[in-house]
Amino acid sequence: MKYAIIVAGGVGSRSGDSLPKQFHPICGHPMLWWTLKAFYEEDAATKIIVVMHPDYIDYWQKICGDDCPEHTVVAGGKTRTMSVAAGLALIPFKEVAVVAVHDAARPLVSQRVIREGYEMAKEWYVGIPAIPVTESLRKGPAHNSSAVDRSEFHIVQTPQVFDNLLLHMAYEEALKSEGHIFTDDASVVDYFGHPIRLYQGDPANIKVTYPDDFIIAEYRLSKP
Amino acid sequence: MKYAIIVAGGVGSRSGDSLPKQFHPICGHPMLWWTLKAFYEEDAATKIIVVMHPDYIDYWQKICGDDCPEHTVVAGGKTRTMSVAAGLALIPFKEVAVVAVHDAARPLVSQRVIREGYEMAKEWYVGIPAIPVTESLRKGPAHNSSAVDRSEFHIVQTPQVFDNLLLHMAYEEALKSEGHIFTDDASVVDYFGHPIRLYQGDPANIKVTYPDDFIIAEYRLSKP
Repeated sequence: MKYAIIVAGGVGSRSGDSLPKQFHPICGHPMLWWTLKAFYEEDAATKIIVVMHPDYIDYWQKICGDDCPEHTVVAGGKTRTMSVAAGLALIPFKEVAVVAVHDAARPLVSQRVIREGYEMAKEWYVGIPAIPVTESLRKGPAHNSSAVDRSEFHIVQTPQVFDNLLLHMAYEEALKSEGHIFTDDASVVDYFGHPIRLYQGDPANIKVTYPDDFIIAEYRLSKP
Repeated sequence: MKYAIIVAGGVGSRSGDSLPKQFHPICGHPMLWWTLKAFYEEDAATKIIVVMHPDYIDYWQKICGDDCPEHTVVAGGKTRTMSVAAGLALIPFKEVAVVAVHDAARPLVSQRVIREGYEMAKEWYVGIPAIPVTESLRKGPAHNSSAVDRSEFHIVQTPQVFDNLLLHMAYEEALKSEGHIFTDDASVVDYFGHPIRLYQGDPANIKVTYPDDFIIAEYRLSKP
């Protein structure tokens, strides 16, 4: 069985608007609709779970539309980690399955990237799409930063796909670790001690964050 | 005196085309034209030096147009470091000046970012625009990468602006260091031993690399 947990917990700010960006219209549908469509089209049998802030669940039910791929909505927690855990709680611990965790703000994900993630997770328990860093990086405080060899680094994207049992165990440990902040699921599984295996992501699989990103998303999704 | 060395040495490939991207038309002008215009509009007195591959100098003279801001063209070297050094060779060593080094592929740079770079360099000898890392980073080989705290890192942009004497001295040392690869000028000055001071860059100041970036550039530069 394949599951997809779509993290749509944002309450909006960086894109310069008060409506959380996952609900913004792109080519006539909310961004989240397009994200669900990408998973549905890769495999209509994938079970989709959407995690969002409880304040927006009613709103989403109203705007998602009759043509929205089937999915279950669950209320998120205070942190990203707690939100993913809330989604994961709907998946039986003992079920043999692979689970993708994906940002609602990445509606441009390709079927190739989704498919390879699930394949990697079946083979290696973990599949994380990543792309090279094309800009120069520096580290440390702004008044005295130091050079970094960017070729050693990867920008990681989503979907991050895992064996179901591994992800459950890693989250159990992560929820116990107070004060530790995890920015993604690879970090959670890494913290648990399992090797993190990367595969080739896609520069076009952007996280729609800034106003310019919406322009790209409109352009891409307007093409059939 | 203010100088700007515009690095246009690319011979094209990543953007998926054989014509180097700095010559690609955006809203009716080559990308490089827009980059020169950004510096000219910030201060018409800034002396602009363009470094490019010798094979493209004639081509550029033909396409740049009568309305292109005044500039000197110089042939670049085999590496980025040698190209910037070729531009720097046109600036007298002993002149009290600040020198910006800027990617031709960043035509969307704002006047605010250019101005603050020069101001930082006057005050601190170094001014490097940087933005936060908004995506998760990992380090190491793809089969066993490790988590990285992205909040410690900065994505650096250009213009990177320096005191003229400092930049000359740092390049003299860099050219002697065989085998060391510098991806930007901050790294050159860092290697020389001078502290690198960052200031607030701009997410819109993208390096136009992928086809999507041209869509953004067209959109932005089509607005007056």
